[in-house]
Amino acid sequence: MAYQLHYWPTIQGRGEFVRLALEAAGAAYLDVARGDDAAGQGMGAMAHYLEDKAVPRPPFACPFLVDGKRVIGQTAAIMLYLGPRLGLVGKSQADRLWTHQIQLTIADFVVEVHDLHHPLGATLYYEDQKPEALRRAAEFRKQRLPKFLAWFEAILERNPGNKPARTPHLVGAKLSYADLSLFQVVEGLHYALPKAAKKALKKTPAVVALHDGVARHKRIAAYLASDRRLPFSEEGIFRRYPELDG
Amino acid sequence: MAYQLHYWPTIQGRGEFVRLALEAAGAAYLDVARGDDAAGQGMGAMAHYLEDKAVPRPPFACPFLVDGKRVIGQTAAIMLYLGPRLGLVGKSQADRLWTHQIQLTIADFVVEVHDLHHPLGATLYYEDQKPEALRRAAEFRKQRLPKFLAWFEAILERNPGNKPARTPHLVGAKLSYADLSLFQVVEGLHYALPKAAKKALKKTPAVVALHDGVARHKRIAAYLASDRRLPFSEEGIFRRYPELDG
Repeated sequence: MAYQLHYWPTIQGRGEFVRLALEAAGAAYLDVARGDDAAGQGMGAMAHYLEDKAVPRPPFACPFLVDGKRVIGQTAAIMLYLGPRLGLVGKSQADRLWTHQIQLTIADFVVEVHDLHHPLGATLYYEDQKPEALRRAAEFRKQRLPKFLAWFEAILERNPGNKPARTPHLVGAKLSYADLSLFQVVEGLHYALPKAAKKALKKTPAVVALHDGVARHKRIAAYLASDRRLPFSEEGIFRRYPELDG
Repeated sequence: MAYQLHYWPTIQGRGEFVRLALEAAGAAYLDVARGDDAAGQGMGAMAHYLEDKAVPRPPFACPFLVDGKRVIGQTAAIMLYLGPRLGLVGKSQADRLWTHQIQLTIADFVVEVHDLHHPLGATLYYEDQKPEALRRAAEFRKQRLPKFLAWFEAILERNPGNKPARTPHLVGAKLSYADLSLFQVVEGLHYALPKAAKKALKKTPAVVALHDGVARHKRIAAYLASDRRLPFSEEGIFRRYPELDG
């Protein structure tokens, strides 16, 4: 049976990390909230899991994955579940935990990217917190962006599975869901903060090589060219507000 | 061999979630950075794992756990690793994933509690972002605090393992690491936002009952009364700034 991914139908957001994993593996899945109400899909199908008191283990928020009777929320937990099933993580427990640890660090980074434009919280509009966003963005560009990228670069450099002139991976010598997520973060940074991203990525050639290698992955390249890939926009996590780019 | 926990030596912070799990299980552990430099402990021992280029899989930040050759960062990943070893998670894969999903949602909540006093980022002092913190705190008290607590209450109500007049648990009928972490969050809210916490917790009696039950746990009660338990302070995640309490 096809996996059911439940996420906002008009943005990449956190759902995109899951979409990339499912697409890279060529897995059968439904992007439920983008489907037809008449077919039992659409936003109503998503709301059921979040609001219906008959759901024994409801997710706090989307994205969540439904696989038969299983309902799994939290992007990183979805990856933990899908990784072995999709062949997107190593076989050893040590590799699986390390891949998950990297994914959680990517999740932390994504929270900080989101808070760039919402430093006072997601319940206020960007326009209502613009001076605060400008201050937070300056700190992010100066401190946090280089710090996170340097860590990804360091673990790529220290991964003994990587060989010169080949696409580097975060764990071992094979593509993992963490590679796909880091690809997405680099894509998002290029969209949201083109100047700051270009400057920061000059110092992290392995991160750039990973990104470029993932973009050339056959199934990922086909997905990115398809209409299944939603565009970045100012409704998502990565938003292009030029004033935040310094 | 004793587990090595590496975390800032003077605050509870995120390390406290790990400490509570180790303490509840009666596990042997070293709180390394609080130890003696002369014994190979102290801050230098922690810095080694974060800074030494010879560490193949360095954590991004503390807390991290060292267990023999394993070095595990990210609080939730540490719990994922320790849970089965300490008997603080159910045996089925479904229970383990659900417990982890709850832990990740607690982690999200903790980020928002931290950002109350640091809406513009952790690299600026609270005093440099006070007006922003006041605005963010108002949103938190009104929207986010009740929303998170209502979710914990709902999953406690829906857990078929819970029986009337007994301490409720988040998963099944036994204490899990997620219960311990939710206990810590309630403790922290009482410290940081006593008025707002009291008001919000009136609507979530199962969360209160879980908290009170964990506080009576024999090993936890002994730990809380010991000098191993650091006090809450304005250096940690949960900070008492009365102006943020409304």
